[in-house]
Amino acid sequence: MKIGLFGFGCVGQGLWKVLHETKGIRADIKRICIKHPDKQRPVPAHFFTTDPAAILDDPEVDVVVELIDDADAAFVIVSGALERGKAVVSANKKMIAHRLPELFALQQKTGAPFLYEGACCASIPIIRNLEEYYDNDLLTSVEGIVNGTTNVILSKIFEENIGFQEALAYAQANGFAESDPSLDIDAYDPKFKLCILLLHAFGVFVAPEKVLNFGIGRLQDFDIHFAKSRGQVIKLIARCYREKDKVSGYCIPRFVSENHRYAHVRNEYNAVTLESAFSEHQTFAGKGAGDKATGCAVLSDISALRYQYKYEYRKFSQNGTFFDTSDTILKVYVRHQYEGQVEESDFRTIEERYIAAHSRYWIGEISLAQLQNARWLSDPGVNVIELGTDYTDFASSH
Amino acid sequence: MKIGLFGFGCVGQGLWKVLHETKGIRADIKRICIKHPDKQRPVPAHFFTTDPAAILDDPEVDVVVELIDDADAAFVIVSGALERGKAVVSANKKMIAHRLPELFALQQKTGAPFLYEGACCASIPIIRNLEEYYDNDLLTSVEGIVNGTTNVILSKIFEENIGFQEALAYAQANGFAESDPSLDIDAYDPKFKLCILLLHAFGVFVAPEKVLNFGIGRLQDFDIHFAKSRGQVIKLIARCYREKDKVSGYCIPRFVSENHRYAHVRNEYNAVTLESAFSEHQTFAGKGAGDKATGCAVLSDISALRYQYKYEYRKFSQNGTFFDTSDTILKVYVRHQYEGQVEESDFRTIEERYIAAHSRYWIGEISLAQLQNARWLSDPGVNVIELGTDYTDFASSH
Repeated sequence: MKIGLFGFGCVGQGLWKVLHETKGIRADIKRICIKHPDKQRPVPAHFFTTDPAAILDDPEVDVVVELIDDADAAFVIVSGALERGKAVVSANKKMIAHRLPELFALQQKTGAPFLYEGACCASIPIIRNLEEYYDNDLLTSVEGIVNGTTNVILSKIFEENIGFQEALAYAQANGFAESDPSLDIDAYDPKFKLCILLLHAFGVFVAPEKVLNFGIGRLQDFDIHFAKSRGQVIKLIARCYREKDKVSGYCIPRFVSENHRYAHVRNEYNAVTLESAFSEHQTFAGKGAGDKATGCAVLSDISALRYQYKYEYRKFSQNGTFFDTSDTILKVYVRHQYEGQVEESDFRTIEERYIAAHSRYWIGEISLAQLQNARWLSDPGVNVIELGTDYTDFASSH
Repeated sequence: MKIGLFGFGCVGQGLWKVLHETKGIRADIKRICIKHPDKQRPVPAHFFTTDPAAILDDPEVDVVVELIDDADAAFVIVSGALERGKAVVSANKKMIAHRLPELFALQQKTGAPFLYEGACCASIPIIRNLEEYYDNDLLTSVEGIVNGTTNVILSKIFEENIGFQEALAYAQANGFAESDPSLDIDAYDPKFKLCILLLHAFGVFVAPEKVLNFGIGRLQDFDIHFAKSRGQVIKLIARCYREKDKVSGYCIPRFVSENHRYAHVRNEYNAVTLESAFSEHQTFAGKGAGDKATGCAVLSDISALRYQYKYEYRKFSQNGTFFDTSDTILKVYVRHQYEGQVEESDFRTIEERYIAAHSRYWIGEISLAQLQNARWLSDPGVNVIELGTDYTDFASSH
């Protein structure tokens, strides 16, 4: 195999190193397309080019590995490579989540394989398991902690008794969060992963705009104290599930008990839990962020291409399921500041109310569709956290 | 697909129920071969037979599912079915571990698929992941908690402050341990699973007799107190790993810190951790015992047969690796009763010694090969527990 590589950041450099050290995978990087030719690099200059065509139009290159940041440029590269019949490996979750229907169609048309395990929970082989092992309609639910950055922040908050801002600063200083961290903090990144999971788990294409992403950016000390007083921690959970022909999904922080398996998933680790027939669940855990973790997945994809492996998208061809959030009922904690700020009629029930001078919360049930459309959801003074099934009210938990 | 089923215990009955309730898998059970025709059963009598030939010689039956206890009888059924070109699903770890070379040869000869995900950690799809995702030589180590019964017992001991005998009685009373629990307690069951893992992870056939299995049957309060005083719990770990062309493996209890991820794997749960390129690790967790967990795996195997899935045993054909335990150095705690009971010259180093009237222990390094051959290993007054890499001596841990 001759690889044409786009991007030479940490993942690309790690890949170079491993491919030159491992005897098992007979794949060579032939050419590397970069943006800035003047940077000092640990690889001889003749490997580099700034011209995408030098890779895409080279008939000797049979595998294109796309590892650049820019989602639009990445799509041009990936689609161009597929059009030319080349196999493609990418880890660009934003691009993939937004372009899945087109990328699916391109694979059908050209027959070229497109693998992207690294786009979803980095090192955890979740897409491959959904494709290969859970390739039947026995699967009922997929959920978990799928964003490393927010998990680092939440771990810091609950293990070191610090506030959100301080934890965010820690994550940024240690390379776990971008200088503009909103993709992670506001739960876009886990939502993109959820859209990819939705296709491979249940065979539905769901545009990211249709999926609720509510992050941890509004987390205040009040919420943290609430969690601790109930023996809970907070985790950002992406979830999707199927009930007959309907598939639903969302991404919201959740209170989970300190003893819950998710509470033990710390820092940059991710964990995905699948529920299937016989209602048993399996959990896949591993590093969900970082160059090495992503490099692992990219390398496994390259390795799979030795056997012409491609995703079959079997569930898509099988069933007529569709995405619909109206039947999903969430039990949520809604912290706000003043009366009338949150619309009571949006709720099915309100089971607990707490009212003090500057903070109040409700605990109640609301349909996911109603929550997505609620006018108060965009109010920065309102925070929403789902309650896990092991939540009990203040009286009974004490 | 027409299924011929051997055995109609809990797994078989669960399978019957799910296959009749699930629309996705188009497979019918045509005939069920049982031993005792007079038992009351929740399925019409015409489904049953006591004659194996009624299934094996029925050309309409294309899949044989073997779910009986007896390892020898199971081998006759499985090999008979493969010889007749039928696909076979089994969960019989003892039979498979002992007969892998013959079963492998039969598959090569007949081309018939033989799947046995349920034989290794029940619901955890570990064989399929080793076959499909870790199908290259980037994998370096596979280890974990692979026996549910002993994990129930160890969880009880450390979470409820009871002794070994009481915990064993609990496990037996609650259906987690057989009336003769020695297959689990003495670590034969996890060893059989390790032999299966060795083939799919590293491509080596290893006869069970060559692998050290040291269980938890000699666990005494002294050992438990030792663990607790160091902030440790004990888990029974099966482990195998590769270093260049050599593969090693063993199954011994291990001290792990109370914060270690294995410490959170409780009761009948199993967890398997894989280490691969870039030294990242992935953990797969799920129920490792119980009818439903095994039923899950059997059902997934049946489902995979829809696509003529078969194990490729790619690593076996790839490499010339061999099993050799002489380079494996273990750091162990060896509790004994009197001077001279354990041979000091078997050890490379002894780093700690504790001596009291009726109990003493050493902590030291020993090669796995030396330990396997040590004469004192069969002495019931001696207990051996491996130290995890996070172990620190008494002085530094306080």
